[in-house]
Amino acid sequence: MTAVVHGWDRLADRNPFVGFVDACLRGPAQVVFQNNPLTGLLILVAVAWGAVENGQPRIFGGGVVGLLVGTATAVVLRADNASLRKGLFGFSPFLTGIAVPTFLDDRPLMWLYLVLGAIATTVVTLALNTIFKTWGLTAFTMPFVLTTWVLLMAAYQFDRFTVLTNLKPMFPGEGQLTGGRFDWDLIPTFLRGVSQVFLINSWVTGLIILVALLINSRWSALFAVVGAVGATLLALWFGADAASLDKGLFGFNAVLTAIAVGAVLHRPGALVTVYTLFGIALTLFVQLALATVLTPLGIPVLTGPFNIATWLLLLPRRHFAPVPNHERVKESVVSAVRHTV
Amino acid sequence: MTAVVHGWDRLADRNPFVGFVDACLRGPAQVVFQNNPLTGLLILVAVAWGAVENGQPRIFGGGVVGLLVGTATAVVLRADNASLRKGLFGFSPFLTGIAVPTFLDDRPLMWLYLVLGAIATTVVTLALNTIFKTWGLTAFTMPFVLTTWVLLMAAYQFDRFTVLTNLKPMFPGEGQLTGGRFDWDLIPTFLRGVSQVFLINSWVTGLIILVALLINSRWSALFAVVGAVGATLLALWFGADAASLDKGLFGFNAVLTAIAVGAVLHRPGALVTVYTLFGIALTLFVQLALATVLTPLGIPVLTGPFNIATWLLLLPRRHFAPVPNHERVKESVVSAVRHTV
Amino acid sequence: MTAVVHGWDRLADRNPFVGFVDACLRGPAQVVFQNNPLTGLLILVAVAWGAVENGQPRIFGGGVVGLLVGTATAVVLRADNASLRKGLFGFSPFLTGIAVPTFLDDRPLMWLYLVLGAIATTVVTLALNTIFKTWGLTAFTMPFVLTTWVLLMAAYQFDRFTVLTNLKPMFPGEGQLTGGRFDWDLIPTFLRGVSQVFLINSWVTGLIILVALLINSRWSALFAVVGAVGATLLALWFGADAASLDKGLFGFNAVLTAIAVGAVLHRPGALVTVYTLFGIALTLFVQLALATVLTPLGIPVLTGPFNIATWLLLLPRRHFAPVPNHERVKESVVSAVRHTV
Repeated sequence: MTAVVHGWDRLADRNPFVGFVDACLRGPAQVVFQNNPLTGLLILVAVAWGAVENGQPRIFGGGVVGLLVGTATAVVLRADNASLRKGLFGFSPFLTGIAVPTFLDDRPLMWLYLVLGAIATTVVTLALNTIFKTWGLTAFTMPFVLTTWVLLMAAYQFDRFTVLTNLKPMFPGEGQLTGGRFDWDLIPTFLRGVSQVFLINSWVTGLIILVALLINSRWSALFAVVGAVGATLLALWFGADAASLDKGLFGFNAVLTAIAVGAVLHRPGALVTVYTLFGIALTLFVQLALATVLTPLGIPVLTGPFNIATWLLLLPRRHFAPVPNHERVKESVVSAVRHTV
Repeated sequence: MTAVVHGWDRLADRNPFVGFVDACLRGPAQVVFQNNPLTGLLILVAVAWGAVENGQPRIFGGGVVGLLVGTATAVVLRADNASLRKGLFGFSPFLTGIAVPTFLDDRPLMWLYLVLGAIATTVVTLALNTIFKTWGLTAFTMPFVLTTWVLLMAAYQFDRFTVLTNLKPMFPGEGQLTGGRFDWDLIPTFLRGVSQVFLINSWVTGLIILVALLINSRWSALFAVVGAVGATLLALWFGADAASLDKGLFGFNAVLTAIAVGAVLHRPGALVTVYTLFGIALTLFVQLALATVLTPLGIPVLTGPFNIATWLLLLPRRHFAPVPNHERVKESVVSAVRHTV
Repeated sequence: MTAVVHGWDRLADRNPFVGFVDACLRGPAQVVFQNNPLTGLLILVAVAWGAVENGQPRIFGGGVVGLLVGTATAVVLRADNASLRKGLFGFSPFLTGIAVPTFLDDRPLMWLYLVLGAIATTVVTLALNTIFKTWGLTAFTMPFVLTTWVLLMAAYQFDRFTVLTNLKPMFPGEGQLTGGRFDWDLIPTFLRGVSQVFLINSWVTGLIILVALLINSRWSALFAVVGAVGATLLALWFGADAASLDKGLFGFNAVLTAIAVGAVLHRPGALVTVYTLFGIALTLFVQLALATVLTPLGIPVLTGPFNIATWLLLLPRRHFAPVPNHERVKESVVSAVRHTV
């Protein structure tokens, strides 16, 4: 296994085409802060499964197109090659490519819109990274969030598109808060919290993603579970909407915050874990506040809350006391965060 | 008196517990840019009076809890000790602690929410200060504003909370502009403009706060009055809502801008006074614009307009010609602004 | 002709009054990134023509007052003299001065509001330039956009003003998308796209502005046309509102992006042109998304979309391969962008 991995890495270094494929495979893995083509491949399988299970294979197609176009745009714009090879220009366009066919009706023009959106996502990634570099941060998935918000809100003004978000614009507090009864079947709910990171509602997809995390970083897999469980239980306690809760919609942002803050961007440890638990609560509150802000516009929060909460948690630059970590994050995003243009 | 003050200062330097109490006392004073534990103590008295007068003593309790939790969070996160000792990590959580029981109904879960909010306010203070340091500024009370907005907007989505802002979400221009007749009893209105800095509607509270200012800086007390009078008269002239005007709601943001721009962050003088008068008008216009933005969400502007207007007035970094100032701002926030992490 | 220009330049250098007039003339030209008093004079003629044609000469008067007050404010605040002389403190207040009488009813108090707005525009220009300098950018026309938004949204809360934007606050998707039938009379529509940069609906005004561009930079005139044509055709293809399209309202933001990205801030060339065409699409999508955001507030997008799109396109700092450019942009905004405080 290790020999195969090393062989692939050497091939990717020598052959530009294999290098491009390698970068594209690492894209889906970088959504969850992993730099591993096998993790990315498994996530592609997970998304394909979920798309087919929900009867919308074009969602998987959109993701692949977004991944290829976004990464190719970074090549054309001569983005930093080291970041490019790590898949850091693939993860946001991959998500944009999933989001566009999820929220817009199927028609040929949608695919042109998706391609323009993927190009825009890479331009916005380069732009926001320039800004966030000032404070030692990167744009995370915010380029995906901003670009997708723009595409959806512009679609309201185009006769040719229909927005399918199931969110009717209204005033906060007008909607029925509890759209369904919660069945207390919690394990699938937690797993759907993981799958919703990729806008997929499927516990099988969530399970495959956890395996994909596990083969690269046990800490990341553990904190993904902690994030999904913690945020879902907190939402349950405070009485958030049961229908959304069941779909895992209160889990996915906290999953990303927990991996980033608890496992990847700090050394895992006791103090860091306490900070991460607080971060999970912060992410949930920011998510529900952002949902209120977006209620009159009828668009979804996407992973905006994760980005906002994680920036707020990282900006104080508290260097928690080093603790022994049993699993080295070999080539972690920490350095990627530092070196990205 | 001076001997007592010096004795207290020495005790606070030596004894960590007294030092923590001293930092907590300076917190309420730093809301109005004063670094003086006696000013802070008087403001605590003023807030307690107003809370009891309005039949809601739990508002004062919330403020004290916020102050203690927020300052303690800064200790745990090893924030810059000099800033901590000046009360610069207490003033925003103090306001968050006042706001939560003001705008949410009373129940045990509200107190947990308040504690999490106070912790978040300190994290956001550290985060925003990192950003604003880039341009030689600090976050002022924006961490309180952002955290409280998040807590209120998230509360809309929780079955367990009821938001009590008296602001029904609607479209701008839909509401009856003049909710009441103005009685031209102006002096109490000006004093309520001062008390509203701490979300209190009481002219007695406003008067005690002016005394608290006076014992530390005459210029600050003077400009607080100029801000309250100027903004209230301008709002009256332009025909703003009379019911809000009577409660002092058009005064409190301008009070803060006037103290900051006119008395503390520049040397008081003729040109600075003209700039401050313009700043009072700017603050009022920003406040009413922000009220329009927040109308569909049904949440209050808090001290957001003061923060926005004062950043805009300070960012040009116009170094007005030095003028003799008869009262030295001894250990002013100017240096705090420079040295805060 | 050249002798006259040189004579004027020498006079402006020697005589402070002529220098002020020269700076004021360059203001309107800097809206479209030209540093030429003759271009500015022609644009003043174009705006005057449009204002009279639409029966609202006070709009031209407002522009002139804004230009004079904004530039004078920069003198009083001792702004960077080189930038001041290039008209870089005149262009945003000029637009604020046009916008206020366009969107508010005529009454004496409106003129005081306009003067305060012009002063605020210059303060905001100095403030935002301090921030954007961090990333090698300037504030473009965003100070005009932000100040005008504040003035309009505050006017909702003042009994003395009536907002005349023809935009009733509503939820996105509620309005009739196609408010009128498009007559396919495209050339005047393209020209109105140019005139709407100055909030004027007149093809004659658009034609005069193109001439004003042509006498300073052929590339700028060319890309202005490319922007207006490209964005209008794209909006037509995707099915945007026909009534707005006919008025040129989908053209003006793209006109500014195209001049900035295609002709002034990069050397014109093949790759830059492709990037600019993408930028025109990005500007249109951002414009329609921003229109959706502002629908519940009932205020217009102004040139906000141009600013956002152009910042996003410039922040990646892609230095496209140098290509021969047949027309030198002599004293371009590129250097202005670098040197402005």
